[in-house]
Amino acid sequence: MASEAPAKVTLADIARLAGVGVGTASRALSNAKNVAPETRARVLRVAQAHDYVVSPEASRLAKGNTGRVALVVPHLSRWFFGSVVEGLDSVLHGADLDVLLYQVGDADDRRDFFERLPARRKVDAVVVVGFQVEDLERQRLETMGVHIVAAGGQSAAYPAVHIDDHAASRQAVDHLLHLGHARVAMIEAIDPDQPHLESTRSPAYYEALEEAGIPADPSLVVSGPWGGEHGAASMGRLLGTRNPPTAVFAHSDEVALGALRTLRRAGLAPGRDISVVGIDDHPAAELCDLTTVRQRPGEQGVIAGRLLLGLLEGIEAPRTSTTVPTELVVRGSTAPPRRR
Amino acid sequence: MASEAPAKVTLADIARLAGVGVGTASRALSNAKNVAPETRARVLRVAQAHDYVVSPEASRLAKGNTGRVALVVPHLSRWFFGSVVEGLDSVLHGADLDVLLYQVGDADDRRDFFERLPARRKVDAVVVVGFQVEDLERQRLETMGVHIVAAGGQSAAYPAVHIDDHAASRQAVDHLLHLGHARVAMIEAIDPDQPHLESTRSPAYYEALEEAGIPADPSLVVSGPWGGEHGAASMGRLLGTRNPPTAVFAHSDEVALGALRTLRRAGLAPGRDISVVGIDDHPAAELCDLTTVRQRPGEQGVIAGRLLLGLLEGIEAPRTSTTVPTELVVRGSTAPPRRR
Repeated sequence: MASEAPAKVTLADIARLAGVGVGTASRALSNAKNVAPETRARVLRVAQAHDYVVSPEASRLAKGNTGRVALVVPHLSRWFFGSVVEGLDSVLHGADLDVLLYQVGDADDRRDFFERLPARRKVDAVVVVGFQVEDLERQRLETMGVHIVAAGGQSAAYPAVHIDDHAASRQAVDHLLHLGHARVAMIEAIDPDQPHLESTRSPAYYEALEEAGIPADPSLVVSGPWGGEHGAASMGRLLGTRNPPTAVFAHSDEVALGALRTLRRAGLAPGRDISVVGIDDHPAAELCDLTTVRQRPGEQGVIAGRLLLGLLEGIEAPRTSTTVPTELVVRGSTAPPRRR
Repeated sequence: MASEAPAKVTLADIARLAGVGVGTASRALSNAKNVAPETRARVLRVAQAHDYVVSPEASRLAKGNTGRVALVVPHLSRWFFGSVVEGLDSVLHGADLDVLLYQVGDADDRRDFFERLPARRKVDAVVVVGFQVEDLERQRLETMGVHIVAAGGQSAAYPAVHIDDHAASRQAVDHLLHLGHARVAMIEAIDPDQPHLESTRSPAYYEALEEAGIPADPSLVVSGPWGGEHGAASMGRLLGTRNPPTAVFAHSDEVALGALRTLRRAGLAPGRDISVVGIDDHPAAELCDLTTVRQRPGEQGVIAGRLLLGLLEGIEAPRTSTTVPTELVVRGSTAPPRRR
């Protein structure tokens, strides 16, 4: 039974609106001693204005079972993963759960994690951030009563919070087509750790071109691993063709930023000479005037945290998933094609 | 008694050299089942070549006490903090310790953490990432036998791993002076969470100017919070003065990237028209051709992790600290001043 109530105001929302941390908001609402009177008053005012009530389930959680949740993350130093973890952490600590961090650098690390964790029974739930869990691993955890949630990654097999990669890619490519571009290149990114997974962002490119009546040109598609160096090298390859593109769809902002560097080194102005669009709204995109499709990983983490709390309280259907909307953010790196 | 042996090869080093994750390396060396024979052989070859032996203390650690370490971090979505945590996590998991994550968004969150943690006695040690612990909080933890280590932050009171901020700032400013710049501005960054702390990067600017015989000009110094928006706004202010600088020292790469955006919007070319240098070597610095002083936060995390293992094993003096060297990385954003 999926909850049909309207989206509830959470502790994290109250904290943000009152301008305090989640821990402070929680203490203010639970009448703990160490909160300044004016801070407590502000938090209570905000909570009242939004009809927020402390969930008795949430305070019960920490007493049952281990009171711990494992976050499994491939790369903490990267903005996307760090932001999802930041969002998750704020919600889980707000419910007084402890967060155990597991960094899994390669496929062997991942396998080891899923083999050892249930045996030790250290946590009540596992959140995988930005990668897919194989079916056998998932079944193993479920058999042992450990909940599993995916944050920032696609999954049909367990509850997940993610963007619609196809829709996000269409927003990027359609923007270039609407501006009047007909020679649109794609710099495609593949996860080297899970190379067997099909890109969820490429089909939208071909679909958008077809709808616009533009035949796909294989010389305009370059593939490689995620990251800026791939973007820089691929932009170079595209510039070295007989008929370079007038616009480029990059699978991520870091890939797009690498492409921008190559353009600048070649004396070309992004936007005016060649348009570039990415996906993410990485903080560096704002600083580099990069047009992009915003995906808000911190919010994906917050929603995944709430979904997990619901599962632990038994009030969410085990297959409830959420698609977080994305939006085009237009900056200086895209413009109509130059008339030659 | 501080260890006087040469820097030991660690499990993280072996993992890196063998091209596997730390968990895989650990399992290969401990003859666990689930490692492919060729992977195990490669790890053993690397370990033998570097005289690496599995530390019996490290494997003992997980059995004593709680087997858990708390990482306390202000902002996980930011590259610097995420990278330090990534380095710490690889070492601590390599020693079979569990890592509890605590995100402290504001001063109240921090106080709450230090008040509640010792009472619950959940961990054997605390690593604070990138901020300073107040004296009373530290004494409380020490009294209860909880070790404390600072990673990526200055401290005289407990073991810390950090860069020399003064030396790093001198590298940046001296580079501009060596290029021949005489009108050198500084975009200074202050931590809004700890505004009472003096900047550790500003004194080097005044010292370098004085040694070069250049009088400091107050109109060339702009202060504000960390982040790109501060850099962008401050560069605008500097361009609006009667006699703008020919070079800018920014306290961090994100601040510097904001300054670069303002320059480009004004039609000025970084390097050719105005030079800009930062501190960090943030991944976006490489993608934006920004000259900077590299500080390797992942390595600071690894070293702090090893320091903590030493403390837990009782083989490190409680005040052992490590300064990680920094280095100038010259890219396209700095050049000699233009002759007018």
